Parts: sequence; C-alpha cells; structure tokens
Amino acid sequence: MKWHQKEISLEPRGRGFHLITDEVVNQLPDLKEIKTGLMHILIKHTSASITLNENYDPDVRSDMEKYFNRTVKENEPWYEHNSEGADDMPAHIKSTLIGSSLTIPITNGKLNLGTWQGIYLCEHRNHSGSRKIVVTIFGEEKV
Amino acid sequence: MKWHQKEISLEPRGRGFHLITDEVVNQLPDLKEIKTGLMHILIKHTSASITLNENYDPDVRSDMEKYFNRTVKENEPWYEHNSEGADDMPAHIKSTLIGSSLTIPITNGKLNLGTWQGIYLCEHRNHSGSRKIVVTIFGEEKV
Amino acid sequence: MKWHQKEISLEPRGRGFHLITDEVVNQLPDLKEIKTGLMHILIKHTSASITLNENYDPDVRSDMEKYFNRTVKENEPWYEHNSEGADDMPAHIKSTLIGSSLTIPITNGKLNLGTWQGIYLCEHRNHSGSRKIVVTIFGEEKV
Repeated sequence: MKWHQKEISLEPRGRGFHLITDEVVNQLPDLKEIKTGLMHILIKHTSASITLNENYDPDVRSDMEKYFNRTVKENEPWYEHNSEGADDMPAHIKSTLIGSSLTIPITNGKLNLGTWQGIYLCEHRNHSGSRKIVVTIFGEEKV
Repeated sequence: MKWHQKEISLEPRGRGFHLITDEVVNQLPDLKEIKTGLMHILIKHTSASITLNENYDPDVRSDMEKYFNRTVKENEPWYEHNSEGADDMPAHIKSTLIGSSLTIPITNGKLNLGTWQGIYLCEHRNHSGSRKIVVTIFGEEKV
Repeated sequence: MKWHQKEISLEPRGRGFHLITDEVVNQLPDLKEIKTGLMHILIKHTSASITLNENYDPDVRSDMEKYFNRTVKENEPWYEHNSEGADDMPAHIKSTLIGSSLTIPITNGKLNLGTWQGIYLCEHRNHSGSRKIVVTIFGEEKV
C-alpha cells in the first residue's frame, strides 16, 4: 500500500475553463508505481473549481464559461457579499455548483479516464494568481 | 487491506435519470468481504453523469430530467460546440453540473446509503449506447 | 494503515447553508493519528447536501441560499413529485446540483483545507430534524 501526497501550485490562468491534465500528471512520477488505486485532488480555494469534461474541442471550454456566466449572473441586486467586486459572489456559487474536489481511478500506473475526459481548472475570478491543489495518490503498488 | 477494481458496461438506456444501484451492486461480489471501506465510481464519459438521489418515486427522476432540460437549454444561439446535435453541448454542461464520480461508504459488506438513496445514471444524450463505469472498492477485510 | 468510520447525527438546523467544520472535526479524535490520508463524508439524505465554501462571511451562506432558491424554484407547475410540500422536489434537485459527499485530504493529523474553506451543511427542507452523515477517515498512521 502506497500513499503519496503533494501540494502543487498551478500556473496562473485567466478567467475561464482550462485543461490541466498534463500539468498535474507530469508532477506525479509516483503515479506509475501504483497498480490499482485512486487519485484525489482538492483545490484549496472557494472561487475556483475542478471538474472532468471534454478534452478535445476548446469550444466546449468557452461554451462552459458562457453557460456559467449566464446561470450565475454578476451584479444581482440581492448579493450582500460583494466586497471584492462583481465576480466575487458568483465565483463562490460556481465553486459549489461545480465542486472543489475530484477522485479518479488509477489502473496500471495511469489515470483511468475515458478517451475524451480531461481535468479542468475552472477559474472564476478575473484576477487571481496561481491556484493551489493538494493531490493524494494511493493504492496497491506494482510488484 | 483489499482492493478490487472493475470496469462495468451499463445496460443502454434512453435519455433521462435511471436508478442503477442494483445493476452495479450485483456485479460486485467482493463488496461483501469488506468490513470498513469505500466504493468509488467514475463514469468514463462527458455527456452522462452519476448522482445519488431518491430511490422510490419515479416522478423524482422525471422531474429531475425536466429541471435539467430547463436550466441547460438546447439550441442556445451562443453555443459554438454543436457538431453532434442539439443535445451535444447541453450534455457536457449537465455532466459538469451533476458530476462524473461518486464515493460511497462500505460498512459490514454493504453500501452504507440512507434508506431513500440510490445511484442514478443520468443519460444526457438522445442516442447513446452502453455507458462504461470504473468501480473501485477498497477497505479493511472482514476476518 | 488506519481506518475509522463513524455515523454522526448533526445538530438540527433550519433551511439554509451552515458551517459545520468544527462540529464534524470535534467528533473525530482519530483524525490526529493520521499522517497522510483522506476524510470522506456522505450525507444520508436526498433533501440536504454538503459542499466546501467560504468559512468567514455569513453573507456568503445567505447569498448561496438565495441563489439556489432562485435557480430551483418552488411550485413549478410541471413538478409531479410534490407530496411533501413546495420544498420537496426543489430539495431533491438542489441535492444533486450540490452533491451529497465530500472528500478532503488529511495531512499531519489535520484536514488540509484552504485558509478560507469550511464544510457546509446545506439544508433544503423547511422542517427537518437532525441529519446523519457517515464519516470515513483512512490513511497512514503517524509513527
């Protein structure tokens, strides 16, 4: 049984949905030692989120940004939490709608995702720096 | 410590929300050997999702389908990703709103769900075949 | 490798979003024995949910309640499942939008959350009693 846990600072990105599978996996050489296990990711913020979605067409990511901006509008007159600007409360709501953690199976040293699945960082603020994630990988080791 | 991982092809179903608890559990005889542990499910697709919800009244599942069709509309003029039809981009958005993985506690060889909780397959496409899930069960074995 | 699983009955709370991090952690003395691991929580209900969000300003929690009441309205004429009142079907939908489980990393005997992250109980019914959660903590023990 192997456990490996690492805090990773992701490259800063602008508001929107971004594919980060390779950036995460490249920092986890221990992944390939696990035969059967899981990888868990937590994003340590309440104004960004992570999800799995389509890893090929960038239009999916821009349509996703458009959808969430329409369903969680800025400047709603009933927002009381808005001290950090128009993108403040919407970012918190999007974070809870999408979620702040992911768990993915590991099989024979690799993430066992569908062909078209990739990990998205969903950045909900206009101006944020690097986002921190905690990655925990655990499982049975290869012999 | 026991690990068991299995890829399961679910029976094909039409668009909508479907209760699949029994179909999943019946294919996991190893479940009953685990005293304390967890079961993780990943659906390997970006146009279907999984969730826990009410396992009794089928109206909950049809109302759920109606809600998600209203909150994520087809044929929005601003969708750019629509090469596979009107249900294409809405399916991706619903997948991220609902989520593509679930983790459930195992206690004394059984899923430890609430009385009214069941596992739903949420099929967001009009015409899709069988959906694949990866199920990972792990925990302390019974003695 | 340590496993600890416990069912906890949360204090009853009114409809809304409530910070429960301390209430949960205070009932888990075993947490501090784990060096590297995870904590999983399942809420055993289909009309309440759990999420991570901002742990400081209570306005975030009241704005969150307002947002979800607007995006999942009561008394929609097309709801067929409404035998328990106007808050019945909306509670089920909110439960699937937000989610019924959470997984959080444990590092050196403590939850490894971001500075501003806390665990929310999201109570979607007007009149419910205590809610039950199953908490599973597991990982490598401290030496």
